[in-house]
Amino acid sequence: MNTFKILEIKQSVFADNNRQADALRTELKTEKTFLLNLMSSPGSGKTTTLTKTINALKDEMKIGVMEADIDSDVDAHTISKTGVKVIQLHTGGMCHLDADMTKQGLEGLGTKEIDLAILENVGNLVCPAEFDTGASKNAMILSIPEGDDKPLKYPLMFTIVDVLLINKIDVLQYFDFDLEACKERVLKLNPNVKIISISARTGEGINEFADWIRAEEKKWNES
Amino acid sequence: MNTFKILEIKQSVFADNNRQADALRTELKTEKTFLLNLMSSPGSGKTTTLTKTINALKDEMKIGVMEADIDSDVDAHTISKTGVKVIQLHTGGMCHLDADMTKQGLEGLGTKEIDLAILENVGNLVCPAEFDTGASKNAMILSIPEGDDKPLKYPLMFTIVDVLLINKIDVLQYFDFDLEACKERVLKLNPNVKIISISARTGEGINEFADWIRAEEKKWNES
Repeated sequence: MNTFKILEIKQSVFADNNRQADALRTELKTEKTFLLNLMSSPGSGKTTTLTKTINALKDEMKIGVMEADIDSDVDAHTISKTGVKVIQLHTGGMCHLDADMTKQGLEGLGTKEIDLAILENVGNLVCPAEFDTGASKNAMILSIPEGDDKPLKYPLMFTIVDVLLINKIDVLQYFDFDLEACKERVLKLNPNVKIISISARTGEGINEFADWIRAEEKKWNES
Repeated sequence: MNTFKILEIKQSVFADNNRQADALRTELKTEKTFLLNLMSSPGSGKTTTLTKTINALKDEMKIGVMEADIDSDVDAHTISKTGVKVIQLHTGGMCHLDADMTKQGLEGLGTKEIDLAILENVGNLVCPAEFDTGASKNAMILSIPEGDDKPLKYPLMFTIVDVLLINKIDVLQYFDFDLEACKERVLKLNPNVKIISISARTGEGINEFADWIRAEEKKWNES
């Protein structure tokens, strides 16, 4: 038995996504819901990172998670074990969510009582970067095995994120990954991004990420 | 100085991609050019795998490589060091190549003398699976750090490939990756796929992949 709903997202009819995104942000501000959009390649550790982060935060804020996938509900099952509200969004082949699709998801999730809504976007470094979802903040995970050249190859994604988690730091020694060169490439594209090294597996860095969310959620509700 | 051309690909005007793909395959057959379309997530090791494979095959066949990227020419630089013909394709934000875009790339590369043309597709498990490029065969790389659940989450990609390379097998012991469970999931979607475990870094399995290409290229020219 699923403990979560599955929602088939409809393609948006709005031509002006940026306007929809701004409208959604205004709505979320009124409702005092902080929406975090989490993006990455497939297999970089979004779901494991989320599980650990939710466990660090769930006693102090009401959390709801939207799991966006082309197909399957593997991640929604995993997240639902944390006890927070989860909805699985099926994008029907589309490789991103725009603001209207995110809004459909939020309506399915129900945000009235939610302090922190998290959108786990489709695993992809291209399309999700091109569409403002209306999120309060954008987070991205880059994992060590993917290589330190990713900022060179997917510059837009690294430009639009507010926080970058460099995951699987526990296996750094087994890969040819130059952490300093990678950070330099990212900061050249995006001087204001916060970079946190984490290991979702060992839990390293999760507290620092949880602190970042606490601070940003507070700012969101006060501004 | 670049030793390769950079081509800005134009968006296709053809509504019927499948027909364009079949027409391209017919053309390639006439020219005796075997076109391999290589797909994967970002950072799974496409370029390193290609470098090793090209070095194994370049003395026995004329090879040309198309490097498709949203931006940058990092991979074209790397491949050009093998001495084979390379062209960098810029997709202008698009996360896949269709048959017409592939044809533009092949024209830029020049296929008349080429036995083996390789398209390194955009790093993405979603869009490239949805568009037939006109390739003779489709190859995919899944790397160990991405996780054994990927066939469940990106089923279409695993369904359309002819050969699946499971890369970074040298770091298997550091990850929670169930190789047998993964293979079972893939074979359930695609019983005819050839699965080869490789390490592009150590060279393990590259000869088996080169053998597969040799055999398929031979069949392509004989059929």
